[in-house]
Amino acid sequence: MATLRSYVQGSWHSPTDPADGGRPLHDAVTGEEIARISSAGIDFAGVLEHGRRVGGPALRELTFHQRAGLLKALAGHLREHRDELYAVSTRTGATLGDSKFDVDGGIGVLQAYASKGRRELPNETVYVDGGVEPLSRGGTFVGQHLATSLRGVAVQVNAFNFPVWGPLEKLAPAFLAGVPSVIKPASPTAFLAAKLVELIVGSGLLPEGTLQFVAGGVGDLFDHLTEQDLVSFTGSAATAAKLRTHPTIVGRAVRFTAEADSLNLSILGPDAAPGTPEFDLYVKSLVAEMTVKAGQKCTAIRRAFVPEQHVDAVVEAVSARLARTVIGNPASEGVRMGALASLEQREEVRRSVKALAAAGRIVYGDAEKVEVLDADPERGAFVSPLLLTADPGRAEPHEVEAFGPVSTVMPYTSTEQVIALAARGQGSLAGSVVTADHAFARDVVLGVAPWHGRLLVLNERDATESTGHGSPLPALVHGGPGRAGGGEEMGGIRGVLHHMQRTAVQADPDTLTAITGRWVQGAQRSETDVHPFRKHLEELRPGDTIVAGPRRVTQADVEHFAEFTGDTFYAHMDAEAAAANPLFGERVAHGYLIVSLAAGLFVDPDPGPVLANFGVDNLRFLTPVKFGDELTVTLTCKQLTPRESPGYGEVRWDADVTRQDGESVARYEVLTLVAKKEAAR
Amino acid sequence: MATLRSYVQGSWHSPTDPADGGRPLHDAVTGEEIARISSAGIDFAGVLEHGRRVGGPALRELTFHQRAGLLKALAGHLREHRDELYAVSTRTGATLGDSKFDVDGGIGVLQAYASKGRRELPNETVYVDGGVEPLSRGGTFVGQHLATSLRGVAVQVNAFNFPVWGPLEKLAPAFLAGVPSVIKPASPTAFLAAKLVELIVGSGLLPEGTLQFVAGGVGDLFDHLTEQDLVSFTGSAATAAKLRTHPTIVGRAVRFTAEADSLNLSILGPDAAPGTPEFDLYVKSLVAEMTVKAGQKCTAIRRAFVPEQHVDAVVEAVSARLARTVIGNPASEGVRMGALASLEQREEVRRSVKALAAAGRIVYGDAEKVEVLDADPERGAFVSPLLLTADPGRAEPHEVEAFGPVSTVMPYTSTEQVIALAARGQGSLAGSVVTADHAFARDVVLGVAPWHGRLLVLNERDATESTGHGSPLPALVHGGPGRAGGGEEMGGIRGVLHHMQRTAVQADPDTLTAITGRWVQGAQRSETDVHPFRKHLEELRPGDTIVAGPRRVTQADVEHFAEFTGDTFYAHMDAEAAAANPLFGERVAHGYLIVSLAAGLFVDPDPGPVLANFGVDNLRFLTPVKFGDELTVTLTCKQLTPRESPGYGEVRWDADVTRQDGESVARYEVLTLVAKKEAAR
Repeated sequence: MATLRSYVQGSWHSPTDPADGGRPLHDAVTGEEIARISSAGIDFAGVLEHGRRVGGPALRELTFHQRAGLLKALAGHLREHRDELYAVSTRTGATLGDSKFDVDGGIGVLQAYASKGRRELPNETVYVDGGVEPLSRGGTFVGQHLATSLRGVAVQVNAFNFPVWGPLEKLAPAFLAGVPSVIKPASPTAFLAAKLVELIVGSGLLPEGTLQFVAGGVGDLFDHLTEQDLVSFTGSAATAAKLRTHPTIVGRAVRFTAEADSLNLSILGPDAAPGTPEFDLYVKSLVAEMTVKAGQKCTAIRRAFVPEQHVDAVVEAVSARLARTVIGNPASEGVRMGALASLEQREEVRRSVKALAAAGRIVYGDAEKVEVLDADPERGAFVSPLLLTADPGRAEPHEVEAFGPVSTVMPYTSTEQVIALAARGQGSLAGSVVTADHAFARDVVLGVAPWHGRLLVLNERDATESTGHGSPLPALVHGGPGRAGGGEEMGGIRGVLHHMQRTAVQADPDTLTAITGRWVQGAQRSETDVHPFRKHLEELRPGDTIVAGPRRVTQADVEHFAEFTGDTFYAHMDAEAAAANPLFGERVAHGYLIVSLAAGLFVDPDPGPVLANFGVDNLRFLTPVKFGDELTVTLTCKQLTPRESPGYGEVRWDADVTRQDGESVARYEVLTLVAKKEAAR
Repeated sequence: MATLRSYVQGSWHSPTDPADGGRPLHDAVTGEEIARISSAGIDFAGVLEHGRRVGGPALRELTFHQRAGLLKALAGHLREHRDELYAVSTRTGATLGDSKFDVDGGIGVLQAYASKGRRELPNETVYVDGGVEPLSRGGTFVGQHLATSLRGVAVQVNAFNFPVWGPLEKLAPAFLAGVPSVIKPASPTAFLAAKLVELIVGSGLLPEGTLQFVAGGVGDLFDHLTEQDLVSFTGSAATAAKLRTHPTIVGRAVRFTAEADSLNLSILGPDAAPGTPEFDLYVKSLVAEMTVKAGQKCTAIRRAFVPEQHVDAVVEAVSARLARTVIGNPASEGVRMGALASLEQREEVRRSVKALAAAGRIVYGDAEKVEVLDADPERGAFVSPLLLTADPGRAEPHEVEAFGPVSTVMPYTSTEQVIALAARGQGSLAGSVVTADHAFARDVVLGVAPWHGRLLVLNERDATESTGHGSPLPALVHGGPGRAGGGEEMGGIRGVLHHMQRTAVQADPDTLTAITGRWVQGAQRSETDVHPFRKHLEELRPGDTIVAGPRRVTQADVEHFAEFTGDTFYAHMDAEAAAANPLFGERVAHGYLIVSLAAGLFVDPDPGPVLANFGVDNLRFLTPVKFGDELTVTLTCKQLTPRESPGYGEVRWDADVTRQDGESVARYEVLTLVAKKEAAR
């Protein structure tokens, strides 16, 4: 019998003669043994050291954009091979639709992080977090938060239900952050995760040491963690609690994040009576959450809150749909719901349903009996969808989770009541509200938000494009308080920063500029003979400056500009009215005139490396400009963002427009595209 | 003998006949018993419930700006009474300078949060976190992160060393976040914290239930925590570990943050030889960190890394300064260093110094003997400043912390080595680098940042305005990885968000607008007969829109604008050169012309509620405007920020400039000041 291999310390490792032959893994559909799993013989301290000494340095040499480029390439590689993953995925009990959810979803996370990495992170290795904090009157002492890559390893303990999406969802932000990953799959479906890692390692795309894979138990790995490592866990609350209290995790304050199953809710709005589009959306969504992945989703709807008067209609409509759902061998045509991941899982579901039924009753399905297509209902881990109703005053529906195709419908009578019932779940990953009523949506969303990591409002307007109740998205946080583990993953760049250390740096502006590579107000400016617009991207340095002016602003200028643009606002045109304005006291120049004249002063007209001004950020008019004032502009190169592709990059300039007494009248940032010299050749 | 009172459930509580009479608290200088402390008789479940049912709702009815206003008022009240706090503070062993550090520092945190709350938070109760995330091609499904107040209580366990600053530093962000506080002071100096709370409660400024105070042990309080509560702890790593593994904290994933003492470092740069200003700064800073609060600061320098060749000079200079430091009764004139907080603390320091001395030697001071002014050196908790040297290869200096006036000087020989030595501290709150060399500063800061919550670069340029190595600032994060507890406090608005739940909301743009109160792209716009610039702040609604135009842009316009402003950039003026530009292909209009014309279209010229355009954000030029293009602008009210003071508020408008085919050519946000109707009356 085959044994799954681990990929550790730069090579594939087969278990060294595990005393018990390893734990057997079974095909969820046929019950057939597929492989055995054991991590016997792995040097776990060595695994961590390999990540720290080989993977970390290799990754930290790359900029965020370069790491993003590798994630993009990896996504492309996996997309090419996704059929191989689908094939293996069937053996976990997944239908093709389920497999796409897992596989394509995981590839989507890589793509999303590749894209966000290039758009939202600098082409550097250090992340500057937030603005410069002025810490002194004179401006010689300032603060700035930086985020640097943790020098350890991200240990990623995955759940059995998403063997592809799970590891990729944790890998992408860690990789982008410059932190190597050690992937530990859940055993029952580890054969699919192993296939994924085989494809990744085979691609040769990721630098060695940035990804390791441990099939089987983690041995003494946790004992060797340090404050630079992190653990992100997805799975049961019980295991989360065990890992969270590991002496090394506690003693060295190792970053630990948990994402656990929770009793997620979906609320039908009082407006969504039978016959409305929202009623149908609610029914469809509930059935989808029960049957996709056979309900083995940590975000699936467990608690369905329905206005008292619509409970019967919901039960009837959901039951009718469930009755049409073909269950069976996921490889067979027409099958809409496959098997649970294992027979053990089915036992667990049956136990939980028994507890739930004590607080209400089963209104659809039989936990012990199910009709299946092209499979043996006993050898395969099949179970019927089970819909229950319950008294929402009972404890069980808010506390007992059956991790399978199981949901409980409960009545509610008021907005306040349903918000209070929501809280009884003690924290969830995801919730949804199906309503076309904005006020109800607002009240419920703000009322239940403190208990939720994600909330979906579903109605006729967004249904077509909605990704549904159960889908975590890379741009949004995934995780929730309390029962859901108290963790937070993804959420775009937030998920990257979770793998980095935020440090407040205090220094003088020149030193801060040297540290961050970004010019900071108060730092030296270099005025040179060459106009900075004549410098290519490679030649520009933060601090390069041009001072231009003065340009006198006359009454004639203002009146001319007003007439030309049509902006005859009284503060520019009417002395008496302007005098009554609490801010001006007399006629003043247009703000847009000030920035237009400033551009006239600093622009170098001839063709050169500066290709375009594509935007302006943070423009503030600080002091009114009065007739006769003379404007000078100081333009300073602030930040360079070369693109990985040849051609050009972005340059952010600090613009400071001052009047004759040195007072700033406007400050802003000018964004330009500047050509690279290499491209000019 | 007096017993300290607690302030719980709306009234002052005296311990109910504690069996042992309570724990005695002593004057650190005279050894005299001051009071006893016991929390006997407190209903801890009731304390939490009082916060949740009375304090939370009261606080959540206020907007961020209103809460900020109360913090400001509280700061003013405490400032008026600070002499009373100084007087009590002397009995903790603090000099007047130490007391100011504690008291004025704490008041400063209130002021800083009051100011940041008004400037950086909306005048609402919900915080919108980050931008709108597009989740679909058609734009009918979008995402947005919100932060809502946790519905529980912030349990704040403070350390003995800053009895005023500690509680205020935790209270301010919690209060601003809408979360009530339960303050639990460390016993040895609880009499000062009690005085602080007496002043706060006496002010009547804070809504009832938003602040409770438990003098003495917390009994079974932790057993009653839920996922909506949080615990922020400052103190020893051992206690942190105990609390962190409390079954309720673990089982309900209660947010827990710890800030523990750490082996903070200060590095002297190789450039800073004796005779340089930086050498003197290093010596002064080290002496200050040893003697302020008698070295009882969790940020104090414990490890002083000095270039090998300068070790003797540093030891000599530091010793000379220490020899001039008068130790004694903090009430006496000329005394620069007072007593430790308690005799127990002195025993602890002596034990730790013994361990440290085993790895090196004491080069200044005697742990058992000290000369003091106006006090009994044995009855008061006095100890001499103690400077040690050690081999940096030994474990002790990186692991043993003597929480008193104790530092160890260690030699280093290279940048790489000192970075590696820094890491042996396993995580610190604060570090400093004293150097005028930018490259060294950059290498060291980026090298040690993963182990630090805060890093200071000190040199001649910033020294005058610097707040020094040991001072946490409200605008910067306080906390550090690993040994420092792995927590993060303050850091400006970050510290507020730590008390809120971040939730990703997915919805259609209209529903999202209803939920957040901010107009979101894609949501309905209301065009009405009244120009929105004619509406007062109270009359404006997100979504109010004016569409104006078209305005045709001609070659003559562009040439005229170029001549008028002086912006004769070739892309506007030279057909041949513009054709060669990779982005344009032909002559195009100036970006500043586009926004100037747009203003000409949307501005309502007559005096009215709109007082001024004070800025522009996020301006992006999306498509070049060619000669003959016709521009239309759509201006939509996006966000209203009324000020608490009468007069006016800020209105943020979405501006979308489109050309004849509907394509956007520029998008930006226009910021205006708009008068309130009440003010106009």
